[in-house]
Amino acid sequence: IRVGYPEVIYCEGKTVEQVKSIIEFMLTKDNNILATRANEKMYEVVESICADARYNALGRTITIQKREEPPTDSYIAIVAAGTSDLPVVEEAVETARILGNRVEKIIDVGVAGIHRLFAKLDIIRGAKVVIVIAGMEGALASIIGGLVDKPVIAVPTSVGYGANFGGLSALLSMLNSCASGVSVVNIDNGFGAAYNASIINKL
Amino acid sequence: IRVGYPEVIYCEGKTVEQVKSIIEFMLTKDNNILATRANEKMYEVVESICADARYNALGRTITIQKREEPPTDSYIAIVAAGTSDLPVVEEAVETARILGNRVEKIIDVGVAGIHRLFAKLDIIRGAKVVIVIAGMEGALASIIGGLVDKPVIAVPTSVGYGANFGGLSALLSMLNSCASGVSVVNIDNGFGAAYNASIINKL
Amino acid sequence: IRVGYPEVIYCEGKTVEQVKSIIEFMLTKDNNILATRANEKMYEVVESICADARYNALGRTITIQKREEPPTDSYIAIVAAGTSDLPVVEEAVETARILGNRVEKIIDVGVAGIHRLFAKLDIIRGAKVVIVIAGMEGALASIIGGLVDKPVIAVPTSVGYGANFGGLSALLSMLNSCASGVSVVNIDNGFGAAYNASIINKL
Amino acid sequence: IRVGYPEVIYCEGKTVEQVKSIIEFMLTKDNNILATRANEKMYEVVESICADARYNALGRTITIQKREEPPTDSYIAIVAAGTSDLPVVEEAVETARILGNRVEKIIDVGVAGIHRLFAKLDIIRGAKVVIVIAGMEGALASIIGGLVDKPVIAVPTSVGYGANFGGLSALLSMLNSCASGVSVVNIDNGFGAAYNASIINKL
Amino acid sequence: IRVGYPEVIYCEGKTVEQVKSIIEFMLTKDNNILATRANEKMYEVVESICADARYNALGRTITIQKREEPPTDSYIAIVAAGTSDLPVVEEAVETARILGNRVEKIIDVGVAGIHRLFAKLDIIRGAKVVIVIAGMEGALASIIGGLVDKPVIAVPTSVGYGANFGGLSALLSMLNSCASGVSVVNIDNGFGAAYNASIINKL
Amino acid sequence: IRVGYPEVIYCEGKTVEQVKSIIEFMLTKDNNILATRANEKMYEVVESICADARYNALGRTITIQKREEPPTDSYIAIVAAGTSDLPVVEEAVETARILGNRVEKIIDVGVAGIHRLFAKLDIIRGAKVVIVIAGMEGALASIIGGLVDKPVIAVPTSVGYGANFGGLSALLSMLNSCASGVSVVNIDNGFGAAYNASIINKL
Amino acid sequence: IRVGYPEVIYCEGKTVEQVKSIIEFMLTKDNNILATRANEKMYEVVESICADARYNALGRTITIQKREEPPTDSYIAIVAAGTSDLPVVEEAVETARILGNRVEKIIDVGVAGIHRLFAKLDIIRGAKVVIVIAGMEGALASIIGGLVDKPVIAVPTSVGYGANFGGLSALLSMLNSCASGVSVVNIDNGFGAAYNASIINKL
Amino acid sequence: IRVGYPEVIYCEGKTVEQVKSIIEFMLTKDNNILATRANEKMYEVVESICADARYNALGRTITIQKREEPPTDSYIAIVAAGTSDLPVVEEAVETARILGNRVEKIIDVGVAGIHRLFAKLDIIRGAKVVIVIAGMEGALASIIGGLVDKPVIAVPTSVGYGANFGGLSALLSMLNSCASGVSVVNIDNGFGAAYNASIINKL
Ligand SMILES: Nc1ncnc2c1ncn2[C@@H]1O[C@H](COP(=O)(O)O)[C@@H](O)[C@H]1O
Ligand SMILES: Nc1ncnc2c1ncn2[C@@H]1O[C@H](COP(=O)(O)O)[C@@H](O)[C@H]1O
Ligand SMILES: Nc1ncnc2c1ncn2[C@@H]1O[C@H](COP(=O)(O)O)[C@@H](O)[C@H]1O
Ligand SMILES: Nc1ncnc2c1ncn2[C@@H]1O[C@H](COP(=O)(O)O)[C@@H](O)[C@H]1O
Ligand SMILES: [Mg+2]
Ligand SMILES: [Mg+2]
Ligand SMILES: [Mg+2]
Ligand SMILES: [Mg+2]
Ligand SMILES: [Mg+2]
Ligand SMILES: [Mg+2]
Ligand SMILES: [Mg+2]
Ligand SMILES: [Mg+2]
Repeated sequence: IRVGYPEVIYCEGKTVEQVKSIIEFMLTKDNNILATRANEKMYEVVESICADARYNALGRTITIQKREEPPTDSYIAIVAAGTSDLPVVEEAVETARILGNRVEKIIDVGVAGIHRLFAKLDIIRGAKVVIVIAGMEGALASIIGGLVDKPVIAVPTSVGYGANFGGLSALLSMLNSCASGVSVVNIDNGFGAAYNASIINKL
Repeated sequence: IRVGYPEVIYCEGKTVEQVKSIIEFMLTKDNNILATRANEKMYEVVESICADARYNALGRTITIQKREEPPTDSYIAIVAAGTSDLPVVEEAVETARILGNRVEKIIDVGVAGIHRLFAKLDIIRGAKVVIVIAGMEGALASIIGGLVDKPVIAVPTSVGYGANFGGLSALLSMLNSCASGVSVVNIDNGFGAAYNASIINKL
Repeated sequence: IRVGYPEVIYCEGKTVEQVKSIIEFMLTKDNNILATRANEKMYEVVESICADARYNALGRTITIQKREEPPTDSYIAIVAAGTSDLPVVEEAVETARILGNRVEKIIDVGVAGIHRLFAKLDIIRGAKVVIVIAGMEGALASIIGGLVDKPVIAVPTSVGYGANFGGLSALLSMLNSCASGVSVVNIDNGFGAAYNASIINKL
Repeated sequence: IRVGYPEVIYCEGKTVEQVKSIIEFMLTKDNNILATRANEKMYEVVESICADARYNALGRTITIQKREEPPTDSYIAIVAAGTSDLPVVEEAVETARILGNRVEKIIDVGVAGIHRLFAKLDIIRGAKVVIVIAGMEGALASIIGGLVDKPVIAVPTSVGYGANFGGLSALLSMLNSCASGVSVVNIDNGFGAAYNASIINKL
Repeated sequence: IRVGYPEVIYCEGKTVEQVKSIIEFMLTKDNNILATRANEKMYEVVESICADARYNALGRTITIQKREEPPTDSYIAIVAAGTSDLPVVEEAVETARILGNRVEKIIDVGVAGIHRLFAKLDIIRGAKVVIVIAGMEGALASIIGGLVDKPVIAVPTSVGYGANFGGLSALLSMLNSCASGVSVVNIDNGFGAAYNASIINKL
Repeated sequence: IRVGYPEVIYCEGKTVEQVKSIIEFMLTKDNNILATRANEKMYEVVESICADARYNALGRTITIQKREEPPTDSYIAIVAAGTSDLPVVEEAVETARILGNRVEKIIDVGVAGIHRLFAKLDIIRGAKVVIVIAGMEGALASIIGGLVDKPVIAVPTSVGYGANFGGLSALLSMLNSCASGVSVVNIDNGFGAAYNASIINKL
Repeated sequence: IRVGYPEVIYCEGKTVEQVKSIIEFMLTKDNNILATRANEKMYEVVESICADARYNALGRTITIQKREEPPTDSYIAIVAAGTSDLPVVEEAVETARILGNRVEKIIDVGVAGIHRLFAKLDIIRGAKVVIVIAGMEGALASIIGGLVDKPVIAVPTSVGYGANFGGLSALLSMLNSCASGVSVVNIDNGFGAAYNASIINKL
Repeated sequence: IRVGYPEVIYCEGKTVEQVKSIIEFMLTKDNNILATRANEKMYEVVESICADARYNALGRTITIQKREEPPTDSYIAIVAAGTSDLPVVEEAVETARILGNRVEKIIDVGVAGIHRLFAKLDIIRGAKVVIVIAGMEGALASIIGGLVDKPVIAVPTSVGYGANFGGLSALLSMLNSCASGVSVVNIDNGFGAAYNASIINKL
């Protein structure tokens, strides 16, 4: 783990006990801490050993801010279409913030109501890097890629009914827009997108 | 085959000889004739038995117009993004016309240059039914579905590189926009889309 | 949302609280309201703020009829083979009705007992547009497409055992009948099919 | 190889030389010989060593009838929808005949023109076992399974455009009709279906 | 439903109430009754309206024997490798018996211990038709197909870990042995296999 | 097309005539020109109308440099493992250069000979953004992602035998390394990766 | 079961009763016993009939050591990247040990922190055969295959989020490194890998 | 490349020129040389610079034996079922021999004629390691895994028609037999299997 970076723990598939002892060890160091895919139980235990721990229930993240620094001037725009994509949005937001970035959230701008997207275009274009998160609206990445000149990182989500096949449709749809400045991360990987965007935002 | 309808022959997988004798038989009746997926060789043979036969090389169709009637007042809009989708566009156009429909072709309106699409929005909205044909730009069906109130028939095409997987990506992408009045036909099936649109246009 | 259209809310992936407050806001306007994929809990909360709300438990829909207008003269035929497809049938029926359409339901007409289908052929042929809903009996769309001259919208369902693979088999099977006036919507998407059919029925 | 059975050679992936020397060896015995997936070149060489060899160009089979016995009384019905399925049909026919079976071929009876199928129903029902061969019309197996009380062996074919995916769609579609007396063999496997049907026909 | 045949009901996706009323109606007729994919709750309700109902918990079947006739002389061999395939075995056994067939069950004869299979070869070869049921041991169908001269119906099962992908591996593996008299039914479809075998056994 | 940017034409699926007339039109403007997926024939025709056109046979690109400006100070590192990935490498290199970027090519650094990769680590780490191109060595993206702190854009290629399935394996493998600053573009999409990298390199 | 080998029982899909009576029977013989995929309930019952039974909760194995022999001199290295792969690691460790092998466990050596892997390289290279277990880090098998000259057996695991698709991504990724001495077993099959490694370790 | 090992070049996707100059360079060293996936043209050029080069046309390998050492005492058994698998067999044989191993080839022992396999069982069991190569007969790996106590390396091949899907069926089938000492390499990867087997044979 690089100096200055937060310590990160991915909680899925770990027991509450494992999470607790890993974070206990992390607390002996001086870095910020981010736990992703953390459930309520894990938070309770973490809070009991560190009162400053903050839980984002929707994003399933625990954050412990040990070093407070002013965020970047430039910002990351995080764009999403549907309420069902919000857990991934929140994971991305928390990750981006703990990594020290200013973030602008633009949600509820799906393809069906494209005017809502256009109303927010200035704030999207003002970002240094854009994250687009979508399940059934994989087309959103194509559209935004065509409208902005900044790097766009697309996150397919596994939500959605029918032929989304656990995010595969959104993934394939997003890969097909790679000619216009879009690149793609793994399904539901809000963390990875934000980590990536943070590197770019700080270049 | 219903009276008044054109006789249709699907040439793929048939020999030139088979195509010739089927069309010879069709010519004994009084209907218009449409041959799809026909190659140049087939056209030469057909022309030798029917001088009126017309060939659309891009769309790989042969048409024989035995009964000329005025087309419908209402029209079918056929929209496509890329030049590589043109063979499917032409198959759809020829099918729609021989079935007696007025057709408006709106091409080169991809997602990346969305302003070109908006410039054509009036003519698309003026149609009674819209066909959207796209390979790498499967997102186009979503966008148009969100912008028009008419039935939209989407045709995924197999063109495109990378993860289009023979049209599968476009197909899945289009299926995910079915909430806004879009329905989908088989990959590359310009004929099926136009046949379908013709039924609707004549309701 | 267009004037005169019902307001639609898709409840899957939303909390009861979210559903409640969205519908509370919708009730301030004068349109009919349709909630799809709604569970019993959601209905109870909605009923507590609007006594007129009606729940279709099988179809998982809540409907609130604020404007009662006479339905269309022409009707949408909704055809299904098996009892396990009934939830999708009911979602389609409720959607079609709240959109102001007359609906005829023809169920239990699978491929195995094709005579039952033929007994209902007149009522199917009398429709302006036909919806076919099937999981294991994807062949039904092909058969009906071959028998009627009206637009047919096919809905693959995810029910069924073995190699249906969450609706994929039915989907592929239905796509292969697109030459006879059939188009396909997303797996289990009764709402999308009915929305689409309504547009056509009102042309 | 069991006594009385024909010797069978599958030519795909073999050189002309290999085919020749294998058949040369087979000719030293007294059984009938069947070569499948044989091209014209192979036939020429085989004919040069055995003037009785007969070639079915469409079915890509070479047959050498060394023992002529009267065929079975009961017959195998081989049913297909489209002309593009004919190669598989012919492979099945040749296989069934060299194995000593009476065969009835019923072709051009697709789902779209279901009346043509009903016109042939008596001859299909009269068979002891039925083979259904279809690519785009996988639904045909379901329909026939529902109409006859005999074992039905379905052969998906790889022909067809769009989302047939090399026969996969037809395969899945056919598997979904297994409740009505249908079982399925491998894609394009006319030989396997006929071999199987022959065992049943001779029970 | 044909006279003399049992009435069959597939319970998956039906409510206990639906099952009860369907069977109540069936009891008004004189045929045997078979319910597949029935859970314990369904059995209790059925037993309360028909004391003769018998439940096979492993096979999840309910059977009501209204007409007792002597079974066939010839028998169906039902072969399986692993204990985890037993539910499908039992579904097949119950189906075959209620359809009036003599059945021989040969289990625990996997590929790894091939000598156990050879020890049972006589009884397998003595059958008129053989059903092979396997998940991880899809190879078993190939082996038995190579060893017997009778029609073999293979049932892939969805059990197994790792790359069985819900039965797909077993399915594909079994399809590749279709040259030796094997045909395949849908994944886990013990009913379909037995129904099919019964037709053949009674030819 | 934005001012200052090169005009880009994707030649696959276009006729030589189409390519010629499109480039003729582009030449009337003042921008650099990049043609991708161009074959030798296309180049000959283009050269006949513009003597300055340069062809990269391996990368299948035509470039016409109308405005020569000094490249960026910071550079894009383009890393690849195998000689079979070179066409995609060259497409990326040409794209990056015509967009005005300094490029460092690091090839023949596969996973099997990891010491060759480590020998080049300084030059990779010195880049502002890294492109990793690999077919059978999808693991390379993971390794480099773990070793550098810069944004890494991974391009799966379709080359390779066996279970690479047209690039799918490499694609999936690369998606699984998205936690360490890697994002992915479409299979074989050297252009898209370079376009994306150029945006980042110029931030 | 061969003499001297442990008796093995795979518990998944078996009832507690079945497991108990199988192990009861095994106890009448003199071999060591290994139960895989065993849950806590099963252990309790087994312990009640054999106090010596030992449970590895993480690896879900029960072992009964009836014959204690000194393990091999040469050892099997079992390498894994993430804590979520530990259940498969433990299954492999228990299997290898009960089969009489010395085992060295090297965990937490993912691709992202490749220096941790290099720190352990000597102990990995010292093994006679290496097992690599990874879900999201399929690349690990490639890297180790490139670094060691011993046979490497790779186990893809189904853990991981996003596009791992139940282990498929890891599987495909691992198959692509087979040129450097790596071979692959089924997803999550720690037992199979260890059984295989044991054969090699004892050569 | 390790000392004493042959230099290996994989020719697919390389030009004749590239192959020539790589081998020219290799010839400056003292090791044996193996070129895989080499076509006739490549051989002619190589022969012109090294008269000792030997070509295996079926296996598409070029070998140059610069150091002749006695092969191992223990041997590798290479087993295959069909003639269409022979190219992969020959690639494996050539690879194993140039690596210094004694090889026994056992071909034409498919599942359908299992007695031919049993006739060769002693020679298979006598090997130190076994390679099984099969396309349509993926079951062969399971059977041999069950019959021998040595490590078995299975190579799925892409030959075969129908649902083999480029080797995928054979691959999945082989993965399901990993419990009995079988591990799997990539589709058609005769080289990888032999390289792997050689490591084991020399332990
Ligand atoms: N939500 C997430 N999605 C994907 N990867 C993550 C996520 N959160 C953390 N990671 C990665 O997982 C690593 C921590 O894994 P672990 O050591 O198992 O807790 C981090 O360094 C990240 O690379
Ligand atoms: N391009 C096409 N794509 C798909 N289906 C087609 C096409 N052209 C014709 N068809 C269908 O194929 C039928 C004719 O098939 P055939 O009798 O084999 O020539 C027509 O009635 C249409 O239903
Ligand atoms: N059952 C359904 N299946 C698919 N899409 C639906 C369904 N019900 C509603 N929708 C779509 O979802 C939109 C509402 O989504 P939301 O704003 O997230 O509640 C509607 O306008 C429809 O386009
Ligand atoms: N037939 C083959 N199949 C798979 N991999 C091979 C084959 N032949 C050679 N290789 C691998 O390819 C490497 C040589 O690749 P290259 O440097 O591109 O010629 C060898 O060291 C092997 O690891
Ligand atoms: Mg852009
Ligand atoms: Mg719309
Ligand atoms: Mg129709
Ligand atoms: Mg039947
Ligand atoms: Mg047999
Ligand atoms: Mg990094
Ligand atoms: Mg190695
Ligand atoms: Mg073994």
